[in-house]
Amino acid sequence: MKFEHEQRLRVRYAETDQMGVVYYANYLTWFEVGRVEYCRAIGVLYDEMEKAAKCFLAVVEANCRYHEPLTYDTEFVIRTRLTHFKGVFLAFDYRLLNLDGSGPLAVGWTKHIVVGQNGKPKKIPHPYAGLLKSGTPAFGSEVEQV
Amino acid sequence: MKFEHEQRLRVRYAETDQMGVVYYANYLTWFEVGRVEYCRAIGVLYDEMEKAAKCFLAVVEANCRYHEPLTYDTEFVIRTRLTHFKGVFLAFDYRLLNLDGSGPLAVGWTKHIVVGQNGKPKKIPHPYAGLLKSGTPAFGSEVEQV
Amino acid sequence: MKFEHEQRLRVRYAETDQMGVVYYANYLTWFEVGRVEYCRAIGVLYDEMEKAAKCFLAVVEANCRYHEPLTYDTEFVIRTRLTHFKGVFLAFDYRLLNLDGSGPLAVGWTKHIVVGQNGKPKKIPHPYAGLLKSGTPAFGSEVEQV
Amino acid sequence: MKFEHEQRLRVRYAETDQMGVVYYANYLTWFEVGRVEYCRAIGVLYDEMEKAAKCFLAVVEANCRYHEPLTYDTEFVIRTRLTHFKGVFLAFDYRLLNLDGSGPLAVGWTKHIVVGQNGKPKKIPHPYAGLLKSGTPAFGSEVEQV
Repeated sequence: MKFEHEQRLRVRYAETDQMGVVYYANYLTWFEVGRVEYCRAIGVLYDEMEKAAKCFLAVVEANCRYHEPLTYDTEFVIRTRLTHFKGVFLAFDYRLLNLDGSGPLAVGWTKHIVVGQNGKPKKIPHPYAGLLKSGTPAFGSEVEQV
Repeated sequence: MKFEHEQRLRVRYAETDQMGVVYYANYLTWFEVGRVEYCRAIGVLYDEMEKAAKCFLAVVEANCRYHEPLTYDTEFVIRTRLTHFKGVFLAFDYRLLNLDGSGPLAVGWTKHIVVGQNGKPKKIPHPYAGLLKSGTPAFGSEVEQV
Repeated sequence: MKFEHEQRLRVRYAETDQMGVVYYANYLTWFEVGRVEYCRAIGVLYDEMEKAAKCFLAVVEANCRYHEPLTYDTEFVIRTRLTHFKGVFLAFDYRLLNLDGSGPLAVGWTKHIVVGQNGKPKKIPHPYAGLLKSGTPAFGSEVEQV
Repeated sequence: MKFEHEQRLRVRYAETDQMGVVYYANYLTWFEVGRVEYCRAIGVLYDEMEKAAKCFLAVVEANCRYHEPLTYDTEFVIRTRLTHFKGVFLAFDYRLLNLDGSGPLAVGWTKHIVVGQNGKPKKIPHPYAGLLKSGTPAFGSEVEQV
């Protein structure tokens, strides 16, 4: 679980508010993008896992600390790690950084429970579970091993 | 189809952008609220129509003209009418007004096709079709007959 | 700081995601609505405080625990309290409840620092500070004293 | 004005709704992304134009026709053109295509008026006006000349 994925994003106009910075709820949307791209990097297509394995990552808790405001059109990196995976529970953490690696602009985490279509807890089946456990990037060139 | 429904709304902080006014995409979200409340007023619960009759109002086209910018915390009214309903096609129009009836702040319309779960066109069954056709408000006191 | 404000809201279609429940970031938008309506109830117009006093409530940290999923068109209540106010720091907490008071559907909190237009910490001036400190509802009938 | 810019995007989970497809208002957010990247490609940084020249592209009207639903995690292209620029008026149009160029998934347009900070019409100054008029991509390799 030492693997980290870095996803580059750019602030959209829609994501700003009248304070001239990014509205605070939008960070959670970026966390989702980071989470999904983390999974893709280790070979787990989240969309496929929902459709083929009928497994959904319901969010149990989310947290974000806002260090520096982000402004329109700024490019930044979201660095995502899987910090916990046992049974039906997973946790990710996220660091938002400037492109030069300085920051953090924000840090956060999310806790999840895997559920089936009926909303009941459900174990992630093979091969998804194994890929998440090993955390080996499927495409080494796109990601950064720490 | 002469019935109009008026829904009162207030601009959320999340809906503003760094220009200090409401971001333009959010008007379409308000149109949806107007549409749903219009349906409720004539006795059609949109949620129930989706679940019980498996009918979904897919949007075919949407249009909005922005007359005056809306600012944070402003209360306004969205006036919704069903302007067309024939076969599987419906159209609504919307007028955003100040609370005193002045305006419009914006006007728009949406065109819809009714589809089933498979995405294919589907006729709205009884009693929904009849209620939409008659356009009689189910709760006279909450709405305004024009 | 024992005063609580209850704001009734209804889930919008735009707020759902393909899992069929409310997307998790939208709870933070509702927290903002709860916060603003809390302030209004004790006589502080947030919009006016921004414009007249040039005081902005920057979010320092936000947290949400999701207990039960919320579905489209559901009406619920967000119960907001000011739990901390000292110097330039404030904190609110939030409970999302069913209309009958059962729940919670979700609980959360936000921590804020008051900043001026330059982004530097700034004390909230009179009369806003006094109103927030006393936490006396300005309009008793709309709110609930606990 | 024959230049077209292509921007690749991927559907976020946050952008879906309970119908299992992208919520219709989000297309307007993508149009904004297309518009901003079009401007960047011809050498106009929209953010800089707002800050340095105090010129804002207020939206006067927006339109979108939805041809095929877009689903979660789908990658697509938004092809943006400046179709009109005279005095204080501009118009863009947008085509959403599959990565292989098939489609369109949706087509739309937006009309804008350039305003200053006071909300009054304002001519775009040099060099932005010239760049927009010529529509020559600043970075030939990233864009496609039609």
